[in-house]
Amino acid sequence: MSTIFTKIIQREIPAYIVAEDDNHIAFLDVSPIALGHTLVVPKQETDLIFDIESARYSELWQFAKLVERKLRGAVPCKRVGIAVVGLEVPHAHIHLVPLNTIEDLSFTKPRLSLSDSQYQEIARSIREA
Amino acid sequence: MSTIFTKIIQREIPAYIVAEDDNHIAFLDVSPIALGHTLVVPKQETDLIFDIESARYSELWQFAKLVERKLRGAVPCKRVGIAVVGLEVPHAHIHLVPLNTIEDLSFTKPRLSLSDSQYQEIARSIREA
Repeated sequence: MSTIFTKIIQREIPAYIVAEDDNHIAFLDVSPIALGHTLVVPKQETDLIFDIESARYSELWQFAKLVERKLRGAVPCKRVGIAVVGLEVPHAHIHLVPLNTIEDLSFTKPRLSLSDSQYQEIARSIREA
Repeated sequence: MSTIFTKIIQREIPAYIVAEDDNHIAFLDVSPIALGHTLVVPKQETDLIFDIESARYSELWQFAKLVERKLRGAVPCKRVGIAVVGLEVPHAHIHLVPLNTIEDLSFTKPRLSLSDSQYQEIARSIREA
C-alpha cells in the first residue's frame, strides 16, 4: 500500500507543494510545529533515510538545501532547523523547521492551526522566494 | 576564537570520540537527550549547515550515514533520528539520537546524567560496532 506521501506525489491527495523535481518533492506539513514547517521527501519509498543508497541520499540532502534557501527567504527566523524522526510514516522525510528558539523544534507541543488560505499564502511565498 | 567543537578537534578539551576522518569528527553529546546521543561535526567551522559548500555538505551527510550505522549497531533503538538546531554553538553539527518514541528527540526535557565510565563504555561500543 502506498504511503500518504506517495499519494501526495501521485496527486491522489492534495498538498501545499513548495518545490519538486524528478526525484523529490517538498510540501507544507499540515500539522506544523512552526510557521513554514516543510517536509522534504524522496519520491521513491524507503522507510529509513539512512538506508537510501548513497548517491540518492546525497541528492536528497542537496534538494533539502535548495528548499531551505527558499524557506529562509520567505519565512522570518533565526535559522532553519532539521529533524528526521520517521516513527509515524514509513517513507523517509526531512522536516525543515524555521526556528527562533529551541522550543520551535519540539514535536510534543500543540501544533499550529492555520486556515487553507494561510497555508496557500505561505506555500506561495516559499515557492516564489 | 575557536568554537568548543574546534577545541575538541584540536584535542584542547577531551571528548568521547566515536569516529573521525580527515574532515569530520563524531563524539558523544555530554548533555544527552537519549543514550548514545552523538554529534557529527565538520572540522572546518561554518555556522549554518546549509551554508557549507555543496560537495563538503554531501560529505558531511555521508559521514553521518557511517556514524549512524555504528550507532544503530551499538545502541538498541527503533531508529536513529536526526536534528540540526545550532542556536547554541556557531559551528554546524548534526545530532544523531537513538529514538524509541518522539519524546526522545525533545531538547527541552531534562538531560540524562551519566558517569565518565558510562560515557566511555557507550563510546567504545559505538566505535567498535
